[in-house]
Amino acid sequence: MPSERERIVIIGAGASGLPIASQIRKETKEKDITVITTGTHIAYSPCALPFVLHGVIPDFESCIMKTPADYEAVGITVLTQTTVESIDLETEKLETTAGVIPYDTLVIATGSYPFMPPIPGVDAEGVCVLKTMEAAQQIAEGLESVMNAVSVGAGVIGLEVGSALMARGVNVPVVELLPYVLPLILDPDMAQLVHNHLLDIGARVICGAAVSEVLTDEAGKVRGVVVADEEIPCQMVLMSTGVRPSTKLAKDAGIETGSSGGIVTDSSLHVKVGREYLPNVYASGDCVEVIKDFTYQRTISPLGTSAYRLARVVADNIMGRNSYLLPFTSPNVCVVGQLQVGSVGLTTHTAKSSGIQTTSRVGSGPSAARYYPKRHVITSKLIVDNSRRIVGGQIISDGSGVKCRIDTLSVAMASKMRVDDFAHVETCYAPPVSALVDPLTLTAQSFFDVC
Amino acid sequence: MPSERERIVIIGAGASGLPIASQIRKETKEKDITVITTGTHIAYSPCALPFVLHGVIPDFESCIMKTPADYEAVGITVLTQTTVESIDLETEKLETTAGVIPYDTLVIATGSYPFMPPIPGVDAEGVCVLKTMEAAQQIAEGLESVMNAVSVGAGVIGLEVGSALMARGVNVPVVELLPYVLPLILDPDMAQLVHNHLLDIGARVICGAAVSEVLTDEAGKVRGVVVADEEIPCQMVLMSTGVRPSTKLAKDAGIETGSSGGIVTDSSLHVKVGREYLPNVYASGDCVEVIKDFTYQRTISPLGTSAYRLARVVADNIMGRNSYLLPFTSPNVCVVGQLQVGSVGLTTHTAKSSGIQTTSRVGSGPSAARYYPKRHVITSKLIVDNSRRIVGGQIISDGSGVKCRIDTLSVAMASKMRVDDFAHVETCYAPPVSALVDPLTLTAQSFFDVC
Repeated sequence: MPSERERIVIIGAGASGLPIASQIRKETKEKDITVITTGTHIAYSPCALPFVLHGVIPDFESCIMKTPADYEAVGITVLTQTTVESIDLETEKLETTAGVIPYDTLVIATGSYPFMPPIPGVDAEGVCVLKTMEAAQQIAEGLESVMNAVSVGAGVIGLEVGSALMARGVNVPVVELLPYVLPLILDPDMAQLVHNHLLDIGARVICGAAVSEVLTDEAGKVRGVVVADEEIPCQMVLMSTGVRPSTKLAKDAGIETGSSGGIVTDSSLHVKVGREYLPNVYASGDCVEVIKDFTYQRTISPLGTSAYRLARVVADNIMGRNSYLLPFTSPNVCVVGQLQVGSVGLTTHTAKSSGIQTTSRVGSGPSAARYYPKRHVITSKLIVDNSRRIVGGQIISDGSGVKCRIDTLSVAMASKMRVDDFAHVETCYAPPVSALVDPLTLTAQSFFDVC
Repeated sequence: MPSERERIVIIGAGASGLPIASQIRKETKEKDITVITTGTHIAYSPCALPFVLHGVIPDFESCIMKTPADYEAVGITVLTQTTVESIDLETEKLETTAGVIPYDTLVIATGSYPFMPPIPGVDAEGVCVLKTMEAAQQIAEGLESVMNAVSVGAGVIGLEVGSALMARGVNVPVVELLPYVLPLILDPDMAQLVHNHLLDIGARVICGAAVSEVLTDEAGKVRGVVVADEEIPCQMVLMSTGVRPSTKLAKDAGIETGSSGGIVTDSSLHVKVGREYLPNVYASGDCVEVIKDFTYQRTISPLGTSAYRLARVVADNIMGRNSYLLPFTSPNVCVVGQLQVGSVGLTTHTAKSSGIQTTSRVGSGPSAARYYPKRHVITSKLIVDNSRRIVGGQIISDGSGVKCRIDTLSVAMASKMRVDDFAHVETCYAPPVSALVDPLTLTAQSFFDVC
């Protein structure tokens, strides 16, 4: 029996859980909202942590946008340092370290956890993962005595952390198992530009090689790693080798997970048990299996923006408005040294692995008029399918201008726009802020340049 | 009878004429190409001139991207300081100050000229118009002895020039006949932000008032203007009161012009004589009547980007590829003091004047994460019609971030996207370059925020 006031319980206080709570509270005071998290700090941006380590953001505290007290003030209960031990879908109750908590509506927003490759020594003191603020603080403290570190994994986090530490004077070789950096978001030709920049800023980059062992001293502390028979001495190992959806709690409750490992839902984000989707239990955030646009592959999309997008669908549905999830192109942007790097949609590789034949063009152009003193080079790659629809884009700039152009492509791709039409879309121009023809337009035009 | 090699003659060496010549030459060496201009300098950006006056671009020469010799080197003849006196469509010949020039294919890219309001004294020495490099050089020289100027017209050029001169220490009140600044591209509420900034940087702004007279001294030089019975002393008057299409040559040849004053064409940009469109005579650039998107009003679009867009259609057709002109949303961006200001599509006013009912929302958001040290405020206004399609957008930033967001809106509008769908489009995020939710997305979401 539901209580008089609907009790909404949200497991997880990350980039999906908290926006759901806030959105519902903005709309109504007639529901009880409880958010449960194992963490201490909430409402900070994990994406900011590399920039605190870098020093460009002055301290960890400034990344905290809200405290539990701020939520309490608007009638949202936040239980920190509280672990949910089990979900009972029958009785609609949670077993937690703070006692039994009943719910009328449940949201599972348990996020993701870092994948740790099964390497000997990976548990040693000095092996770090930049996932939480607490971990970042430990890294920051450890850095005081570290001259040499190794960044394992040349994905976005690996490179952001690596270049942050390099900016602080630490020597940080980067090791990537796959043959090129940023392999999930770039094609090899574009990745080469990032690779070259890493070399320019003094990093060593080792691609196509695995760390086979973490070496420790007699006290159990890291003293090096072994990469392809080479011993690289270091006092710290930063592991950035991807994340996995945190679904144990859901699975233990009988909730279905899919081939990606994420929680299976319908398009309104109701979870599935047996043959049925539960009308009062939702999943949201990194732990959810979503659909990739164009390929319709099942995947997780562990981005803050994706978490927020999922959150809006859940909040809408809890508030009684039908709201449906659309497929994901997962646009992303990161800062590596002085480069901005972004991508959206499919890479040539991910397209091919789904049997989508693509053609692509790469082009460069300036961010401002050629005669304007301050300008950057913006290099873009557009990937189109056989019907000439844009299915992917990658952009690199040695200054600014990536974020919004990725968004522009995202809008074009949401409209299933053909590259021919994209090349004809009007863009704006003023010498301080652009060239007459936008670099992206130039790349789009090159698809039908006859010479 | 055509000669063995097709003779293409282009009247006008501006942002439409030269790209047509270059595009055709890139594709073939089998055509003769002649470009005729009354000017001396070619291939410079008129849009750059305010920024040379400002000093941020070091000199006028650096705005010149190519010389006639550069064109000659690729086999394009450029006749500078040459006036076309008449076009004979029957015999396919031009009378020019350099003699009779026959053509097989003609492009009329005569551009536009500044409109000068019929004010007593408007011909006095010291009344300037920033249209050509030569005029800008004269203004720059005149500025040496000018402490007080008046900028008449608070459109893009009026404000760019006004703020450039203010940056150089000249006192420059701005006078605008219409009730608010940038009246053709902004709504009054957004214009107020620009107005306030102009006040902040020390400018006087007089809206809803006309200059009724330019006062001169006994030598015939400007000594002031009269605005609403007030005499404002100044040594220079900058007129930026709009442009009109330069169509006399075309009209004298019997070519039809439309209600906008521009040359009437079909969608392939063939000009019209009597009931027929001439297959070998094109018009391009500021002098062409184009169609506004959404309202289908006839207008001219005197932007460098529009000129280039028209040029591509003409070049495609001359090269035998069918290419059609689409309606214009004329996205634009300008820099006024420290502000970037842009717009695209309809304003509330232009929509209403075509009977289109609109609703709109204004919202603001940061250009980077809230805790990131360097960030700007981006204020945007979205205008939607009754079917909730985005028909217009206006964006103002106290730093960067306008140009690409206007382009994003342009792509959305080219797709006839509804604001609801736009609000759900994924955007990318990294703390140094964006907030989690893009400011434009926030404004789009506010259309369906329930509280």
